[in-house]
Amino acid sequence: MSLKSPRLDAIVIGAGLSGLQAAHDVQKAGLSCVVLEARDRVGGKTWSLPCANGKGVVDVGAAWINDTNQSKMFALTKRFGLETITQRTEGNCLAHDVGAFPYGGIPPFLGDDGENMRQVRDKIEELCQKIDLRKPALENYDTMNFEELVRHLGGKEVAFQTARVWTKAMLGCEPSETSALWFLDYCKSGGGLMQTRSDMKHGGQYLRIKKGTQSFSKGLAAALHPGSVLLNTPVTNIQQTPGDCTVITKSGTVFYSKKVILSIPTPLYKDITFTPPLSGAKLALTNSTKLGCTSKMILCYEKPWWRSQDLSGMTQSFRGPYTITRDTSNDSAGHYSLTSMPGADAARAWGTLPAHERRAQILAQVAEIFGNAEEAYRPIEIFEMEWSKEEFSKGCPCPVMPPNALSNWGFALREPFGGVHFVGTETAYEWKGYMEGAVRSGERGAEEVVLALGKLADSGISAKL
Amino acid sequence: MSLKSPRLDAIVIGAGLSGLQAAHDVQKAGLSCVVLEARDRVGGKTWSLPCANGKGVVDVGAAWINDTNQSKMFALTKRFGLETITQRTEGNCLAHDVGAFPYGGIPPFLGDDGENMRQVRDKIEELCQKIDLRKPALENYDTMNFEELVRHLGGKEVAFQTARVWTKAMLGCEPSETSALWFLDYCKSGGGLMQTRSDMKHGGQYLRIKKGTQSFSKGLAAALHPGSVLLNTPVTNIQQTPGDCTVITKSGTVFYSKKVILSIPTPLYKDITFTPPLSGAKLALTNSTKLGCTSKMILCYEKPWWRSQDLSGMTQSFRGPYTITRDTSNDSAGHYSLTSMPGADAARAWGTLPAHERRAQILAQVAEIFGNAEEAYRPIEIFEMEWSKEEFSKGCPCPVMPPNALSNWGFALREPFGGVHFVGTETAYEWKGYMEGAVRSGERGAEEVVLALGKLADSGISAKL
Repeated sequence: MSLKSPRLDAIVIGAGLSGLQAAHDVQKAGLSCVVLEARDRVGGKTWSLPCANGKGVVDVGAAWINDTNQSKMFALTKRFGLETITQRTEGNCLAHDVGAFPYGGIPPFLGDDGENMRQVRDKIEELCQKIDLRKPALENYDTMNFEELVRHLGGKEVAFQTARVWTKAMLGCEPSETSALWFLDYCKSGGGLMQTRSDMKHGGQYLRIKKGTQSFSKGLAAALHPGSVLLNTPVTNIQQTPGDCTVITKSGTVFYSKKVILSIPTPLYKDITFTPPLSGAKLALTNSTKLGCTSKMILCYEKPWWRSQDLSGMTQSFRGPYTITRDTSNDSAGHYSLTSMPGADAARAWGTLPAHERRAQILAQVAEIFGNAEEAYRPIEIFEMEWSKEEFSKGCPCPVMPPNALSNWGFALREPFGGVHFVGTETAYEWKGYMEGAVRSGERGAEEVVLALGKLADSGISAKL
Repeated sequence: MSLKSPRLDAIVIGAGLSGLQAAHDVQKAGLSCVVLEARDRVGGKTWSLPCANGKGVVDVGAAWINDTNQSKMFALTKRFGLETITQRTEGNCLAHDVGAFPYGGIPPFLGDDGENMRQVRDKIEELCQKIDLRKPALENYDTMNFEELVRHLGGKEVAFQTARVWTKAMLGCEPSETSALWFLDYCKSGGGLMQTRSDMKHGGQYLRIKKGTQSFSKGLAAALHPGSVLLNTPVTNIQQTPGDCTVITKSGTVFYSKKVILSIPTPLYKDITFTPPLSGAKLALTNSTKLGCTSKMILCYEKPWWRSQDLSGMTQSFRGPYTITRDTSNDSAGHYSLTSMPGADAARAWGTLPAHERRAQILAQVAEIFGNAEEAYRPIEIFEMEWSKEEFSKGCPCPVMPPNALSNWGFALREPFGGVHFVGTETAYEWKGYMEGAVRSGERGAEEVVLALGKLADSGISAKL
């Protein structure tokens, strides 16, 4: 006779921000809930690492929030008493092969290239603003990829290369890899192309967290009932009979629950064996969406040498391996760093190189763009993160939909499958791909479960709630 | 009908130093020979990486030679016109938790610990000198491990911990993991415990190579007939019928030859499928020998800050994660580095940590031992190598024999199996585990093959030679 573990109200799979927020809300409703996490830490793609010299931390994953339209993240910032750093936007930005330009402006491209780029950008912003986030649909923009849209809008080479910087830096994909509609919807979820890309007030990259963004995850995990988060517990199977979920882990441990909240990226659903198998639409989603490839190499320096040249630390490159850099210093901690972000094809190619060549390429690119080789070659610590090489992430920041997927299967993105509910930043209506989206999706998933179990309670099947 | 490739005189498997030297000598004898290499580079455990700032190279694998009793390596140095760097032994050494001591001396251990350690060391040296390298046997020292020998010789805790530094730094194993006889034989192969461990003239760590030790491998590879080395070609099967060898690669390519020279570490023989299977003694060797675990973390600095404190850069630690450091600078290139070497259990535990913790632990250890935290925490580049994580090395520097293996199966170490001949630094009579041993074993393997094929020629079966 085998010992059967008690049946829980809910099991959350994945201790990233969305899963932790969901578990938090489920427990708050008085329901029993554990979180099964594959890794040896909580936080998913929030991961804050201490510098060896004790001066500050770096965020090798999600790094930015704001205090206005990212209301959930700002509330958590207040709740956990976290100090913020306003993203530095003083000084000029640099465009590789092109030159310096003021923050928020356009690089000094030759001829009418700048004007062409500006026109295309404005048309895309206009399209973004037309999107209904609850029902994204726009002419036939889901049948084309984003590259085709840029060409369709009259974009020439420089406009296309600029648009390529957007998809690489924002989604970790080439413009040809994302549906035009998905990209427009993604931007709209952050308030539009300009707002999502902005480092200023209301923008996507306005504030950082002194102690690192993993503080959000750690804070949420600490607020759960003790022992709620089981680390090193990857899930391999989800079995269902009406009203009952059985979750089996890699080590063979079996958990029973009424509901499951799955907080892993859509393309990773296929790494779990479902019995019965996922519905056709869910299967199509997990098979068609692809994870972006965004990496980070964070160069820590003794001093912020770029500032003495009146540079902001923001650079962009059409060539690579990195697409953009930002100043990610924490002056109060004596921490000075430039974060470089290789994305998409360039990141994939760079990732095949041995460590010393990956490092040499990024340093050479920084030295070339900043024109300050000696200083650039003197980092005191380097942090590197390739999310695409990690078994339980396989990419960053979130899944990308190719043409037609959103139109055909988008309806099923947030649809429960039996007792299994789906959360994760790509399922958010607002701030997809950001921590804000993750937390909002977690709240939605918890609400679904609480409501469903509440109804059961009403019908007399469950006494809880 | 399949196209059959022509039959070669010999196939060398593995483009490390021993394999390249063997191929070189086989070709020099006028025989046809290719080298199949699993990696995308030649050199095996000689791997020299350029610093990103262009100032010098680091050797993440084998790093030292001398110009007297390592006659093969010195001949190659001359042949390829390589410049050497004399290992710096000026200034004091540091023992973790103990203090400074002059190079070649004994750390200022408390009480009679130093004297006990010296006595044990001298007894071990005496035993070493008794070994006959062609027939290693000594009382019943192969039935005990090296820890037992140290205890047997009256070694107290400090003597044992010192002996532990030796096996960790020299073999990448704990004293309990190696047969006492194997360790004595290993030392004797380098002239004895004292000479093998020495950084002075005639010692194991006397000279480095400015352009890096991979220059030896590249030089030998370049001296082969063009196209002789096939990279990215891991071998999965070796099949034999009398007089014929068939070598099959992972991609399914088939090579035919009269002889095979296998230049991979003994424990890796079991990763290849032999038809017919390896003889019992060879099987016992591949199954009983274990690869040492020696890692490197090389810290590059702007300046050799330890020298201004009259320190040599040589440190040793009973605690870990690293066992020893050495100054591995190339002053003429403006390259200044400390190479730290985690070994055995400490290296294995350290290797399970994420990159930033591995780095933080080594930096903290350097800062603590040198007592110069600010400077220690300002490396401008860090190179890290964990050979044990590499599919085609699985360890470093070479295989270790546990008790009884040498007595029982040692006779078969260099014994051919049909047409397959075995080389590799652990099969050398002199300088086992060093580049010198690798080259010497390669010469031996080539000699066996040339002799065997010469005999065939004499008997009229082959017209070659």
